[in-house]
Amino acid sequence: MTTYFEGIPKIQYEGTQTINPLAFRHYNPDEEVMGKTMREHLKFAAPYWHVMRNELSDPFGVGTALMPWDDQSNSLQNALNRVEVFFEFLDKIGIDYYCWHDRDISPEGKTLDETHQNLLKVCDLLEAKQKETGKKLLWGTACLFSHPRYAQGAATSPNADVFAYAASQVKYALEQTHRLGGEGYTFWGGREGYATLLNTDMKRELDHMAALLQMAVDHAKKIGFKGQFYIEPKPKEPSTHQYDTDSATCLNFLREYGLLDHFKLNIETNHATLAGHTMQHELDVALGANALGSIDANQGDELLGWDTDQFPTDVYMTTQVMLRVLKMGGFTTGGLNFDAKRRRESHCLEDLFHAHISGMDAFALGLKVAAKIHQEGRFEEFVHQRYESYSSGIGAQIEAGTATLDSLDDYAKSIEAPVLQSGRQEMLENLLNTYLFGK
Amino acid sequence: MTTYFEGIPKIQYEGTQTINPLAFRHYNPDEEVMGKTMREHLKFAAPYWHVMRNELSDPFGVGTALMPWDDQSNSLQNALNRVEVFFEFLDKIGIDYYCWHDRDISPEGKTLDETHQNLLKVCDLLEAKQKETGKKLLWGTACLFSHPRYAQGAATSPNADVFAYAASQVKYALEQTHRLGGEGYTFWGGREGYATLLNTDMKRELDHMAALLQMAVDHAKKIGFKGQFYIEPKPKEPSTHQYDTDSATCLNFLREYGLLDHFKLNIETNHATLAGHTMQHELDVALGANALGSIDANQGDELLGWDTDQFPTDVYMTTQVMLRVLKMGGFTTGGLNFDAKRRRESHCLEDLFHAHISGMDAFALGLKVAAKIHQEGRFEEFVHQRYESYSSGIGAQIEAGTATLDSLDDYAKSIEAPVLQSGRQEMLENLLNTYLFGK
Amino acid sequence: MTTYFEGIPKIQYEGTQTINPLAFRHYNPDEEVMGKTMREHLKFAAPYWHVMRNELSDPFGVGTALMPWDDQSNSLQNALNRVEVFFEFLDKIGIDYYCWHDRDISPEGKTLDETHQNLLKVCDLLEAKQKETGKKLLWGTACLFSHPRYAQGAATSPNADVFAYAASQVKYALEQTHRLGGEGYTFWGGREGYATLLNTDMKRELDHMAALLQMAVDHAKKIGFKGQFYIEPKPKEPSTHQYDTDSATCLNFLREYGLLDHFKLNIETNHATLAGHTMQHELDVALGANALGSIDANQGDELLGWDTDQFPTDVYMTTQVMLRVLKMGGFTTGGLNFDAKRRRESHCLEDLFHAHISGMDAFALGLKVAAKIHQEGRFEEFVHQRYESYSSGIGAQIEAGTATLDSLDDYAKSIEAPVLQSGRQEMLENLLNTYLFGK
Amino acid sequence: MTTYFEGIPKIQYEGTQTINPLAFRHYNPDEEVMGKTMREHLKFAAPYWHVMRNELSDPFGVGTALMPWDDQSNSLQNALNRVEVFFEFLDKIGIDYYCWHDRDISPEGKTLDETHQNLLKVCDLLEAKQKETGKKLLWGTACLFSHPRYAQGAATSPNADVFAYAASQVKYALEQTHRLGGEGYTFWGGREGYATLLNTDMKRELDHMAALLQMAVDHAKKIGFKGQFYIEPKPKEPSTHQYDTDSATCLNFLREYGLLDHFKLNIETNHATLAGHTMQHELDVALGANALGSIDANQGDELLGWDTDQFPTDVYMTTQVMLRVLKMGGFTTGGLNFDAKRRRESHCLEDLFHAHISGMDAFALGLKVAAKIHQEGRFEEFVHQRYESYSSGIGAQIEAGTATLDSLDDYAKSIEAPVLQSGRQEMLENLLNTYLFGK
Repeated sequence: MTTYFEGIPKIQYEGTQTINPLAFRHYNPDEEVMGKTMREHLKFAAPYWHVMRNELSDPFGVGTALMPWDDQSNSLQNALNRVEVFFEFLDKIGIDYYCWHDRDISPEGKTLDETHQNLLKVCDLLEAKQKETGKKLLWGTACLFSHPRYAQGAATSPNADVFAYAASQVKYALEQTHRLGGEGYTFWGGREGYATLLNTDMKRELDHMAALLQMAVDHAKKIGFKGQFYIEPKPKEPSTHQYDTDSATCLNFLREYGLLDHFKLNIETNHATLAGHTMQHELDVALGANALGSIDANQGDELLGWDTDQFPTDVYMTTQVMLRVLKMGGFTTGGLNFDAKRRRESHCLEDLFHAHISGMDAFALGLKVAAKIHQEGRFEEFVHQRYESYSSGIGAQIEAGTATLDSLDDYAKSIEAPVLQSGRQEMLENLLNTYLFGK
Repeated sequence: MTTYFEGIPKIQYEGTQTINPLAFRHYNPDEEVMGKTMREHLKFAAPYWHVMRNELSDPFGVGTALMPWDDQSNSLQNALNRVEVFFEFLDKIGIDYYCWHDRDISPEGKTLDETHQNLLKVCDLLEAKQKETGKKLLWGTACLFSHPRYAQGAATSPNADVFAYAASQVKYALEQTHRLGGEGYTFWGGREGYATLLNTDMKRELDHMAALLQMAVDHAKKIGFKGQFYIEPKPKEPSTHQYDTDSATCLNFLREYGLLDHFKLNIETNHATLAGHTMQHELDVALGANALGSIDANQGDELLGWDTDQFPTDVYMTTQVMLRVLKMGGFTTGGLNFDAKRRRESHCLEDLFHAHISGMDAFALGLKVAAKIHQEGRFEEFVHQRYESYSSGIGAQIEAGTATLDSLDDYAKSIEAPVLQSGRQEMLENLLNTYLFGK
Repeated sequence: MTTYFEGIPKIQYEGTQTINPLAFRHYNPDEEVMGKTMREHLKFAAPYWHVMRNELSDPFGVGTALMPWDDQSNSLQNALNRVEVFFEFLDKIGIDYYCWHDRDISPEGKTLDETHQNLLKVCDLLEAKQKETGKKLLWGTACLFSHPRYAQGAATSPNADVFAYAASQVKYALEQTHRLGGEGYTFWGGREGYATLLNTDMKRELDHMAALLQMAVDHAKKIGFKGQFYIEPKPKEPSTHQYDTDSATCLNFLREYGLLDHFKLNIETNHATLAGHTMQHELDVALGANALGSIDANQGDELLGWDTDQFPTDVYMTTQVMLRVLKMGGFTTGGLNFDAKRRRESHCLEDLFHAHISGMDAFALGLKVAAKIHQEGRFEEFVHQRYESYSSGIGAQIEAGTATLDSLDDYAKSIEAPVLQSGRQEMLENLLNTYLFGK
Repeated sequence: MTTYFEGIPKIQYEGTQTINPLAFRHYNPDEEVMGKTMREHLKFAAPYWHVMRNELSDPFGVGTALMPWDDQSNSLQNALNRVEVFFEFLDKIGIDYYCWHDRDISPEGKTLDETHQNLLKVCDLLEAKQKETGKKLLWGTACLFSHPRYAQGAATSPNADVFAYAASQVKYALEQTHRLGGEGYTFWGGREGYATLLNTDMKRELDHMAALLQMAVDHAKKIGFKGQFYIEPKPKEPSTHQYDTDSATCLNFLREYGLLDHFKLNIETNHATLAGHTMQHELDVALGANALGSIDANQGDELLGWDTDQFPTDVYMTTQVMLRVLKMGGFTTGGLNFDAKRRRESHCLEDLFHAHISGMDAFALGLKVAAKIHQEGRFEEFVHQRYESYSSGIGAQIEAGTATLDSLDDYAKSIEAPVLQSGRQEMLENLLNTYLFGK
């Protein structure tokens, strides 16, 4: 059997502490945490686009990634070859799920029909590999942003023929996701936005975007796809303005167009911070609307203004994310998809493993810390007590909707001046450190 | 008659071009533009808080503003004295409208009842001055953020007694706005947000925030107030996160709680840019939901991360704002409220005039340019043509909701590859310069 | 004996793990790390301005902090009373050093002379308290930014009389720092910057700023002050532009005016991030010029655009800071001054203790982790190997200055194409996590 | 004669005001302003990389630009073909200067020697075309950032062989710049920076960077190149941190390594704003050190965090830039190089003309406005008066270095409390509008 990752063994769940530790320290898929295995809690997924297709170029330089299996051609055979490599990677790293865009896995053909046929052929192989290995598809999506035809948007293109092309791609991507047992289907609005309002009819573009989503919902029903639809918030880049700015903006859009029952959000850490929010905030906004679906697990650099898509290694952040996942009772259709790429300087095959291990271990550790916090309930109790004045008396009337400005005015005049308790932020930050670092 | 602005004449509508030109060059209230006077188009308002109460302090230094009329006391008499000065200012500068928070115009008393009585007494004088001068109240609001009791929020305070105090204040502020003929009532969520999620139940706080707005709507009905309610988006400061982040977030909130019929947005330029958006974007989002109500006319410094509230002098921006106002057919209840303060270094009385003149003239010029652009329709025509593929054929089917993924797939396979027209951003930016600067 | 912190015991070095743990878990002043006590390594200092004078106001609200000892007056007696409270605080929290601005400790008088006399009287008491308690002054400074006379700068004021006032203040602040055995004297350019270039002669202002620093150097020599002078970089706020932008800018200024031998930098975490740099970067820039003097230990919120001055609780950051301190062989005159304030919602006396404990423990833990990293040398070894091609052959010629473009061209033509090793960022981030969180 | 810009005539200096105005309105090269032609004042240059090589790709999509002359190959013939097109463009658009990186104009060969030979052959043709057309080279530079060998830096690479390759490239690029009569040679530190400090020895890297610059200075002397060397400040992107952060940082570096006599700065608007500064600020910092050399004329989007390199159309900004250029007496070796690219949506050939026209006209207008401001001297006079207290008395002593802390303390005690004049920012902003928009 050919191996593409020569010299790299299947990653073990413990290892020596050399400077080059190709081993997990915290992640053990079969270890139980709060009654479920870590595998079930974390549902790690590898993104085909970063693992197989990201050459690590940037706007100032060409790719650096070593990909000895790739002949750099746009051929179907090259695409099929990559599938073998990818499943070897999933096996060695021990990740159960994966995600794709249609154009990651199969090449654009000379005609639209040839393009679709390419997709079907690659999906034949993917289906076979899934059966062989037990790996699963977390979600699929269509790449509606890279080709020049989508330069001015896909569903929001001013050109209706482009919309039709996008719809055609979505049809096939959705059908193949369904065939491969995908648990979800994601819309990432890559080019759904504008470069300048001087040439843009924003309202009309949003109407068109909603139309495509509605068609996808209808088509899913027609073909029997029961997976979850997701929208992925992101504020800027590549467009000057991206319509799916952040969680609240996506929810507003879904409410306006009557789509909220059909969509949840796929939230990415780096997109959260680009929108000026913490990841915790974006997750809580989604949770508040019962719309948290899945997570793109990466991290950004808050001092940089673009999507750096770094591997998630900040355990403060992974702990906060896993707290939210535990709070909602765990993922159903969603999971933790590593939408992360190595730095351009980390061009070796080994780095692909280092990078995923760093992210997986950081999330495994975050899970353990979060489980302890969740079970002990000290933060929760603090928050609960803080609002207890709403659990009876005038507070309960406010929550029940029976208080009025008049009744509250009467009440306010009858009481002593309110005295606030401290918000205790510094104490709580210190308490969080005790969970992370021990006494 | 006492004058507080000694040596400063009533501002004229033309003046000598010295370095100290206390005269308008572009604003002439009675000049007609597109069939209405500039006065009607622009509906300038002066904010009581900045004009009368802003001492020009900042976190690193005490106030510098000269206010010879103010005895620095918290007395009712001092509050009444300020009213006289303010109306002299409105007269000399030629502004027709004003806005207030309850605590700008009248002092906190020893008891809640005394506080309310103070408000009523100042409003007696305001009513008299309005009658005497013809000046009008654009909108009123309650200050629910400065007093320590609101340190953890007003409607979103964890303390229900604080909510009651806030409700009592809103009741009186709303009633006095009604009595003074206010065209609107604004909610600016000064402390409605959080410092840290570690101590916060965001969902419960949002429920409470909606409850207060609903009570205000009910109370307005009860007292017969027909003015417009506004929410004012702002993303951060003073809180780490402010719930009313931006236009889309406010709309999402209003939709979720069934309040969209009762509220429009009061959009501020500096808040737009703090949220990472252009003012044009925020206005267009509001317009798309038929929810643009009023405008806080200032500008920020995009290289700084806080609300600098500078006077609006960028004519690119004032032109874009006035284009939107013309597009929606002009203000109904709303107007251009100068939520702007002088720099701390501009501490003289004369600067108050320079500053307002700079903003009024920039908006007057923006109106004239916008009117020309609006009437000639070249941008509009460009945009219209750009989307014309949606006006018939497959595009019309998409808009009508009769296309499906299947039908679009069939269509896409039947056509030549789509060819995009250029977005022509650079040409359009150049065209905009021709309107601003002539050939 | 009066106690101002009723019910708050002297903080112990271990404690029960309740949600309200007024105890240290990591900081034990007498514990040895790498041959020195933690007390010696960390040299914690409390800033008089935040502990005693910060009322926790912000631009949208008045102070909330409970200060039962303070009569809110500007009297000398009130100032003297605060000294007693402050030393009780230092004792209970177990901090050895403190820092002040002249105006924190003593009030502005009716005349400049009275102002100076106030300072001398308070310093009499400070001197007595220092002797009584063994507490020490890390550094002093003059407040040249709060009073309206400094609204347009102090040394960079366009008004030469203001410069003279500033110089007078510096003279006294420097002399009293000397008298109290201060280890350093800091210049923080509070208002040394500009609001707009439209009214500013930047070159002339910088000349004046350098002049004041030179006078201070000369005066120190005259009075025999051997302490270290510091400049504190900060990019923006309160001014639109602050001249002491970041480490590199300060070094450029010091080099230009021949002051580099007399000044080191006092670097603050939150100022680093406001300048768009990591704290590590700013420290390394200073270290590279042998100009790291002291540290203002706080942290900011990278999603906010102003100086939040939060207590430092991020152990990733405290570890990186302590690594640099160990690398330079420890502080000489400098230390870790908590230039941090509680959140406005944390208004209770107890919060003052929670906050300092959170920061002290985070730094104590950071010290321990940094010591282990420093001693094991794995990062250092990685970096050393990465550059080893410069230790001999052509690399050594480059470093020795003997290579030329011609010689390198010859060499380059003679070799195989260079092959880069991986930068291994992800592996190194993972390695860092092993130090922070264990295997 | 073949034309590549079919249907696009040589651009005229006046034109009809259609929506598609391929004509200048403000720029007339032979028109005199303050005794020099606009051509001489503005010294426009076209960058080979954007005009000829920028395919308008971005990290999320491939190129869209139509380039019918380009066969997409890496061949020398394709490179030679582009030269013809480029000179046709220069002719039609009426730009006198151009700039290049070595790799823009000629392809990497199989060996370093072949690479150099390619460069020489293209420069043969460039030399011929320059003679034929009278076009001139503003500056050349070497591309030390795109090839994977430079992924970890060029002069700052941890690999000394990479340094040697970079030196070899610089040698040839410098020699060909000299041969083509280039007025300058620029170092843009494309990859001179770091991705993470975890693997970086910043001090050693800076030493190496200085070594390369010193070698270039020595080589210039050897070959008789008298042109000006430039460094181009930029803070971030592509690296996490770029060493040449901003003007002050570059000056600090040049001072530290004794290179300030040999280098001036080439300042770019978009780089200024990415560093958190206005363009005016960066220019004034350079001017203050007598180090303003040349300008990369573009503009950024302050709401986005990456280098958008837009065409400069903001006349506020072009006016401020030209004011500085007039103030320093005009360019000597430098000029206005359009380091700007069309938006990805503006993919047509015509857009190349629209874009340059928009930028050239905005600068021509800026020149005219700046000339009027400069000649009338009202701003200058205001600033001069603001500092007049330093022109005599105590202020003059401060400037002369004869004042001391003691003498200033005596003086301060002897005078009345200083009274500040207003900074008048709002008035000055209004005055600026009068210059831009007339009365």
